[in-house]
Amino acid sequence: MRMYDIILKKRDGFALSEAEINFFVKGVTDGSIPDYQTSSLLMAIVWRGMNKAETAALTLAMMHSGDVIDLSGIKGVKVDKHSTGGVGDKTSLVLGPLVASFGVKVAKMSGRGLGHTGGTLDKLESIPGTSINIPNEAFIRQVNEVGCAIIGQTGHLVPADKKLYALRDVTATVEAIPLIASSIMSKKLASGSDTILLDVKFGSGAFMKTLADAQELARAMVNIGKSLNRDTRAILTDMDQPLGLAVGNALEVKEAIATLKGEGPRDLSALCIEAACIMLEQAGVVKDAKDARKQVEAKIKSGAALQKLVDMIKAQGGDESYITHPEKFAVSKHVFEVLATSAGYVEHIDSMAIGIASMKLGGGRETYEDTIDMSAGIVLNKKVGDKVKVGERLALVYTNKADEVSNPILVDIHHAFKLSDNHIEVPPIIHDYIK
Amino acid sequence: MRMYDIILKKRDGFALSEAEINFFVKGVTDGSIPDYQTSSLLMAIVWRGMNKAETAALTLAMMHSGDVIDLSGIKGVKVDKHSTGGVGDKTSLVLGPLVASFGVKVAKMSGRGLGHTGGTLDKLESIPGTSINIPNEAFIRQVNEVGCAIIGQTGHLVPADKKLYALRDVTATVEAIPLIASSIMSKKLASGSDTILLDVKFGSGAFMKTLADAQELARAMVNIGKSLNRDTRAILTDMDQPLGLAVGNALEVKEAIATLKGEGPRDLSALCIEAACIMLEQAGVVKDAKDARKQVEAKIKSGAALQKLVDMIKAQGGDESYITHPEKFAVSKHVFEVLATSAGYVEHIDSMAIGIASMKLGGGRETYEDTIDMSAGIVLNKKVGDKVKVGERLALVYTNKADEVSNPILVDIHHAFKLSDNHIEVPPIIHDYIK
Repeated sequence: MRMYDIILKKRDGFALSEAEINFFVKGVTDGSIPDYQTSSLLMAIVWRGMNKAETAALTLAMMHSGDVIDLSGIKGVKVDKHSTGGVGDKTSLVLGPLVASFGVKVAKMSGRGLGHTGGTLDKLESIPGTSINIPNEAFIRQVNEVGCAIIGQTGHLVPADKKLYALRDVTATVEAIPLIASSIMSKKLASGSDTILLDVKFGSGAFMKTLADAQELARAMVNIGKSLNRDTRAILTDMDQPLGLAVGNALEVKEAIATLKGEGPRDLSALCIEAACIMLEQAGVVKDAKDARKQVEAKIKSGAALQKLVDMIKAQGGDESYITHPEKFAVSKHVFEVLATSAGYVEHIDSMAIGIASMKLGGGRETYEDTIDMSAGIVLNKKVGDKVKVGERLALVYTNKADEVSNPILVDIHHAFKLSDNHIEVPPIIHDYIK
Repeated sequence: MRMYDIILKKRDGFALSEAEINFFVKGVTDGSIPDYQTSSLLMAIVWRGMNKAETAALTLAMMHSGDVIDLSGIKGVKVDKHSTGGVGDKTSLVLGPLVASFGVKVAKMSGRGLGHTGGTLDKLESIPGTSINIPNEAFIRQVNEVGCAIIGQTGHLVPADKKLYALRDVTATVEAIPLIASSIMSKKLASGSDTILLDVKFGSGAFMKTLADAQELARAMVNIGKSLNRDTRAILTDMDQPLGLAVGNALEVKEAIATLKGEGPRDLSALCIEAACIMLEQAGVVKDAKDARKQVEAKIKSGAALQKLVDMIKAQGGDESYITHPEKFAVSKHVFEVLATSAGYVEHIDSMAIGIASMKLGGGRETYEDTIDMSAGIVLNKKVGDKVKVGERLALVYTNKADEVSNPILVDIHHAFKLSDNHIEVPPIIHDYIK
């Protein structure tokens, strides 16, 4: 088999065989295929696409290019969820404990934030003492005992994706549904859970700008899951404004705690409850959607969900008193108000701008080498649909940076709010379900 | 400027600017753009194509990536022609002297043969003593004094094309009209002549399989020439059977000599006379097509055309007595007949098969390291349209190789002839003219 012939075949619009895809992924992993051949095939895939069978074969080959986590030591159903990334997305911190409070197991590997999006690991680390580097045995034991764990990636997972992604990133071949879908799904499958719920975001702050594109990606991923007999579902959620009100690590942890108490912002709470219901359905521990919702609300009300977060943080070496007393989180040196200079209804909040502002305030990183200021970030006071009067607060801004750094950022945050003279409907958070 | 953005722009179907194309070609030439980015752009060009302006800019940038031959030391109009490559194509050996006999200047750089196609330089070297490595000054002097010279490439011509071609060859990105057209035209333009006649071949033995594809390539190249104010024209010629009767180096030289005497095969003679007429029109030394044809035939009849070949070979150090006494060329040790085993009319002669057979007999090279047996090759006795009786000779085969090597090749040559029960029209050699 020759890589040349594989490129030619895809270039001319034909479907690749499983053997050809395996040859390609193996060659990428072991370095026997030169990058210049890989990048020409990637561009041909952007051009010609891949059918369901090819996408599934690519996912499987990538999944098996490295370690596959063995979660068989964990008793019960292991559920996982994945978000395609957004601004203010702290759902993992809510969903893990919430679902685990039903006895369903959450053995989750998360990532760090980069650019305008935050990462669950960084948020966890804003709770003093919390470790995200947990050896495999301890990880399994924690999930068995506590019900949930959220840690950094262990093992040598999907090296083919690392190589391909690095190449796609510099050759303008990122934007192809089969490549995006197989990249995400290979990692999810390699991390070993029984069910997968995908939170596919769309809108100005998301990778997918339109609902239609996000639906296509979601369908591709659900198809991969199906063809590999893994219960995979997707929700399509709005990222045309940040999720919830808080953006920034400790600020988001505090909002997650509030949400677990039933005191979270409307959109975040709705999303977490709905997602939890689906994950519980996937796990087979609820009768139907109505039953699920009733039970989820009860777990929040009883404090059982929050207790799981306390237990998880404690198990991971963190100071759990921060969960029960979130007022303990350090507040940044400077807190600024962004005020409305005109009246109207909030029509749009540019998530990308808010995410970048939070990063610049110290709450995120531009490169993986940057360090994060856990207390920095933004808390919105107004969301899409809210009525705003002149002089009313739009957002509170937290930072330890000097005025000359933060002043232009305050302007950016102000500009991120687009007001309308007309009444604006509060948008739903979930726009579609795919399974 | 970033290569990433250039890839992205082409991927999304936009035209690249001249500055972007210059950046790309410069980066390819100096090695600052990595191959993996170049190959993804090449695949995007195969996908999205390039418009006239882009193709012209690419050609110009490639042309100026290395030396540009200065022919200003040659008095008079310098004409050039280029063939896209075929089997039995010895037209340069006929056209150079023929056109030079009019006082028009031919300062030609040719190439070597590879695979199923032969090269003019190899054919010239079958004439003992002939040198194709001539320093620039001597080259200019020879063209001024004799009127024509055919030599190997001097200087560092179009290094960008060398790099791009090497990459295209292994990434399935050869087949794109703008890339093929700019590759050919950049080299032709860098070699400095005033006018260019392109002989674009199509059919089973050519790179372009159909007339339509060849027309598209021809138009692209003529457009490049036009946009750079270089008189460029093209003829579309049949390569569905070998050109002329002889295939193999010394055998083709003998056929070229015969053609210069007016005793060449019908198709080769027709092509050479027609091409010469166009080149003379381009040079502005004839009144019209009718006048040109009359004069060309006269130069052949008078022996002036052949005398130019004698003069050129002598000037290049060759033994010109081989031109006046072609019976001096060494004949191979073995000469085999391929006989018809059925009767009919020749419908098709597989040029590719004949070219490969000649190569295997010793007349060509599989890699650039192989040496050539100048006497080896094939002389066809029948061409498309000819009537064939059982037992009649289809071809004579010349080789110095042992029987066990040549026997299977004889079978291949036999198979290359496709006979029909029905009368077959003799096809024209030139199918279209583009200017």
